[in-house]
Amino acid sequence: MKINGTPYRSIWRDAASDAVQIIDQRWLPHELRIVPLRNLNDFATAIRDMWVRGAPLIGATAAWGMAEEMARDPSDTNLNATWDVLHDTRPTAINLRWALDAMRATLAPLPPAKRADAARAKAEAICDEDVEINRRIGENGLALLRDIAARKGGGRVNVLTHCNAGWLATVDWGTATSPIYHAVEAGIDMHVFVDETRPRNQGALLTAWEMNSHRVSHDLIVDNAGGHLMQHGEVDIVIVGTDRTTARGDVCNKIGTYLKALAAKANDVPFYVALPSPTIDWTVRDGLREIPIEERSGREVTHVQGRGPDGRVVDVQISPDGTGARNPAFDVTPAELVTGLITERGICAATPKGMSALFPEYATAAQ
Amino acid sequence: MKINGTPYRSIWRDAASDAVQIIDQRWLPHELRIVPLRNLNDFATAIRDMWVRGAPLIGATAAWGMAEEMARDPSDTNLNATWDVLHDTRPTAINLRWALDAMRATLAPLPPAKRADAARAKAEAICDEDVEINRRIGENGLALLRDIAARKGGGRVNVLTHCNAGWLATVDWGTATSPIYHAVEAGIDMHVFVDETRPRNQGALLTAWEMNSHRVSHDLIVDNAGGHLMQHGEVDIVIVGTDRTTARGDVCNKIGTYLKALAAKANDVPFYVALPSPTIDWTVRDGLREIPIEERSGREVTHVQGRGPDGRVVDVQISPDGTGARNPAFDVTPAELVTGLITERGICAATPKGMSALFPEYATAAQ
Repeated sequence: MKINGTPYRSIWRDAASDAVQIIDQRWLPHELRIVPLRNLNDFATAIRDMWVRGAPLIGATAAWGMAEEMARDPSDTNLNATWDVLHDTRPTAINLRWALDAMRATLAPLPPAKRADAARAKAEAICDEDVEINRRIGENGLALLRDIAARKGGGRVNVLTHCNAGWLATVDWGTATSPIYHAVEAGIDMHVFVDETRPRNQGALLTAWEMNSHRVSHDLIVDNAGGHLMQHGEVDIVIVGTDRTTARGDVCNKIGTYLKALAAKANDVPFYVALPSPTIDWTVRDGLREIPIEERSGREVTHVQGRGPDGRVVDVQISPDGTGARNPAFDVTPAELVTGLITERGICAATPKGMSALFPEYATAAQ
Repeated sequence: MKINGTPYRSIWRDAASDAVQIIDQRWLPHELRIVPLRNLNDFATAIRDMWVRGAPLIGATAAWGMAEEMARDPSDTNLNATWDVLHDTRPTAINLRWALDAMRATLAPLPPAKRADAARAKAEAICDEDVEINRRIGENGLALLRDIAARKGGGRVNVLTHCNAGWLATVDWGTATSPIYHAVEAGIDMHVFVDETRPRNQGALLTAWEMNSHRVSHDLIVDNAGGHLMQHGEVDIVIVGTDRTTARGDVCNKIGTYLKALAAKANDVPFYVALPSPTIDWTVRDGLREIPIEERSGREVTHVQGRGPDGRVVDVQISPDGTGARNPAFDVTPAELVTGLITERGICAATPKGMSALFPEYATAAQ
């Protein structure tokens, strides 16, 4: 999407510098730093130290890391070593493994001399495929926003979103943000309430930066405020992303999503989840019982990162010494609170029936 | 309550220094600064600049301010001038006006020569009355916690609380915290989940400090986490305070309270509100429609205060330049989500019937 008028992807190969370029997201929203990744160590560091984040972008970065390595040394030994190094950066990221496997499956059968070109073409294809999936999610979600705009006689459409399911987490468009960007481009009067999303503040740091950079009308709100806004009719629709959706439509997403879903239900606000269909886990039904929730360091709760009065980005401690913290990173929103799932194939109800109608090839597995 | 083993109130007259002493709460939780208030300007500054906060404590501070002025100059002119100066510090604080009116009603009929002693006695009585009300709230709430402990066979009782309805907001005990302190003193195994309470972080700054100082087992959590904990059976009861409760039991409290009430209802967790009965507004019924909600500065949302790496307390900015914010300070929890009201007179249902049974003198007004 755009940064002050100029279109960007979150990762791209730049011919002039002969290198892959990324936005080093650790400095957002305070500074836009675009950095080249030139060798395997650069790529591994960028993934491991979260210069890039978001499942699709992690996968794309790994794919480009393997492609650049193949240009240097296309041997079988290096192909496997590169797979290992990149996979070890964030071993629990399913998309990372998927992208590396896809690269190796394409490259292993080829003679080494042909691998460099094929690897760049495949990395490019993985990126393009992500962009295309998100573009379709946006087109499908756009229909919902058009309907609301029409019902309001062209009045402003107010969307609430949680965390960052934006273009910075993907190669472009994002998932939850894609309908919003499509609606803005379609001339619909859009306004976005951006949940801060403690503890890591991805809403304040990343989604607000995206909206600001693309010139989308928005307000930052604390995670506590969404219920009140919904009670007073200030939110027309909630759209969030998801890390994993079960075969019956339970949605695992960033901690706090569940509270917004409860408020949406109580106030008759439609609650949609935007997702690329590969994030549906057809092997799991009951998200609450079956999905283990990661507990992260309490330091994320007791400390907040921001830009200090001297312009430097620092961590400040908000709680007393001696106070500990609990920090569950995700929660599960039961399917009955979800109005619908916006996928690249269309919109469906968050029910086994709705999902298997849209994805009949998985219907047997899901039932 | 206790600070590292020593009992404190939030305001007291100290004979040794011949001055009223307060905890300057602006420095909590990072530093405990006890400061004397010696003249009218000290008292006015302490209230206006929020060295003290919380309705009961603001009232108590104003009462002491008038008492100290009467020792200096007990004239009618000064009595009225002092009322004006202190009232202007936070003119919308109902308790401030109530305390000043109570002081003037006691003092005005007296000859000036008798006012100094009477004023100190009245200020002391106002403080003692607040402590007594909160002590009774605690005793009444203790019964609920005893029941839970008994049902769990003496197992740990987990309470979730939002914002700071603690002893720092009152003269002692607090409201929502009073049942907790009583239970700790009764030997019940208690654990408190402290909601951070963005944007002003009163949970992280004040409630966590209280729990830490009184040696109550607790964990700080982000405001997003409570729903997840309730889904997983980790919360036995929610107890919050309130700024204003309507005659039918709608509860106006710090923003985000409503989301916790929704989660409690959805997960069969009892949701109680602890309140001194003077905060019931018998003239209002429908809290959602009738109570105007203050919108505060967006800077509270875009910035967070904490202690930096160099030990100094600073504001850091978490969002990009150019991003605005909405900042509603309170929300209204509809009565149907409230299991009960814990008052100094007993516990009642958050219904017109329940409330007027406990407060029959207001029953006519309420119906």
